[in-house]
Amino acid sequence: MLVITNDDGVRSPGLLALFRSVQGLGEEVEVVGPNGPQSAAGMSITFYKPLRIERVALDGVRAYAVTGSPTDSVFLARYKLFKSKEIKLVLSGINLGENLTLQSYYTSGTVSAALAAALNGIKGIAFSMLMDTSREPPVEAFDDAARYTRAIVKEVLRQGFPEGADVLSVNFPNHIGPHTRIRVTPMARTMFDEFVLERRDPRGNKYYWLGGRISKNLREGTDVHTVLVEHNISVTPISMSSGSEQALRSTTELIGQIMTEV
Amino acid sequence: MLVITNDDGVRSPGLLALFRSVQGLGEEVEVVGPNGPQSAAGMSITFYKPLRIERVALDGVRAYAVTGSPTDSVFLARYKLFKSKEIKLVLSGINLGENLTLQSYYTSGTVSAALAAALNGIKGIAFSMLMDTSREPPVEAFDDAARYTRAIVKEVLRQGFPEGADVLSVNFPNHIGPHTRIRVTPMARTMFDEFVLERRDPRGNKYYWLGGRISKNLREGTDVHTVLVEHNISVTPISMSSGSEQALRSTTELIGQIMTEV
Repeated sequence: MLVITNDDGVRSPGLLALFRSVQGLGEEVEVVGPNGPQSAAGMSITFYKPLRIERVALDGVRAYAVTGSPTDSVFLARYKLFKSKEIKLVLSGINLGENLTLQSYYTSGTVSAALAAALNGIKGIAFSMLMDTSREPPVEAFDDAARYTRAIVKEVLRQGFPEGADVLSVNFPNHIGPHTRIRVTPMARTMFDEFVLERRDPRGNKYYWLGGRISKNLREGTDVHTVLVEHNISVTPISMSSGSEQALRSTTELIGQIMTEV
Repeated sequence: MLVITNDDGVRSPGLLALFRSVQGLGEEVEVVGPNGPQSAAGMSITFYKPLRIERVALDGVRAYAVTGSPTDSVFLARYKLFKSKEIKLVLSGINLGENLTLQSYYTSGTVSAALAAALNGIKGIAFSMLMDTSREPPVEAFDDAARYTRAIVKEVLRQGFPEGADVLSVNFPNHIGPHTRIRVTPMARTMFDEFVLERRDPRGNKYYWLGGRISKNLREGTDVHTVLVEHNISVTPISMSSGSEQALRSTTELIGQIMTEV
């Protein structure tokens, strides 16, 4: 079984495109997602209020619409709705807008749904597409991307999930043509030059806007360079772990000094 | 300069304890934190509304109280309040309650403040303490932990940040005595056995609670085993990166098959 979710809500054309693209691969496909937009939800989990699940039918897709976050949706799929069935993959997206750099790793609802699946023992793939997000695109805007989502999922089902990876994060450029390539790249740290804008309200009190301009120094060989500069497709494996071997060793050395001081 | 923040708000006794513990180490200490509780904020960043900064004085601590998240606070410290000064470390905590396992990596506001600092080029240390969080503890509840926060920060200032690590996440047990040890450990994946509770409201409609019981199979050598089972202090280095070398190689092999199919 494949479970599809997202953070734009089950009515998003990106989810419909992803759903259609993985039909006929020999796996049951179910949709469990937020009943409304949950972008930048990160990995929020709803513990303080109960959740409801509504059964909805949209463009021929029967979906479970959850009154919560993408992570809540994964949780309900895994421990309630399909707990007796084997969920082979959680597929998240296709997100309206790219999810690039480590910042997306920590803040994106799309990526978090795949990470939440991985924390609960299921591999996940997040799909996102660079686009003008000022208005909702038609489902056809994802036609080219959908050929790739299908090919990637098909190959993962055939070969198994890449060793050492818990999640794949796939980002599409806004136009896919015959010259578009797929690159496997690590995430850049950030893509923005950050700034703070100071203003004064009519009463003379200061307030601040946080902002970021896309950096002019995007490093080659990273996800963001692949998509924004080369206009190619980036595939980034995520391995969930805290610290590298080197970090564990050097921290152990540092802490060795401390017991004598306290 | 050391910048102190947290996710329980600038009025938290845990923040006061951390602030006092790092006085007299030869560095200026400034407090910039949320003006109210922001637990489980994760790395939320406020882009859609402006922020205000209020100057407050609490128990002798002059603090900048921000109408936003821990990450917003770090952002304002870095790019507005102290942009001309060198911030050597961002210290986050001491959080009322532990932040253990990879789940805390993705959801904790305390840890996220340190990660946000690291994304912006400043090393961070997150401090959290296992405790009964049903009522606010007095600042004295952190006295023993504070000796360790001071020793750790002092040693990092003296030796430099451990190589290969971007952030340290420190967790204290609820009681620290003469037999308490510090262990450097990686994060466990999770500490809970998850479940979903189904109930019916007075109108007969179903609703669901997400829940988790602390697992009986906590693995030795992990952060959660160190704190919950051994009652020791865990120090976990975090290295921010997306995928391991192995994951990058195996994903490249997988993707190699795809270009021919699309």
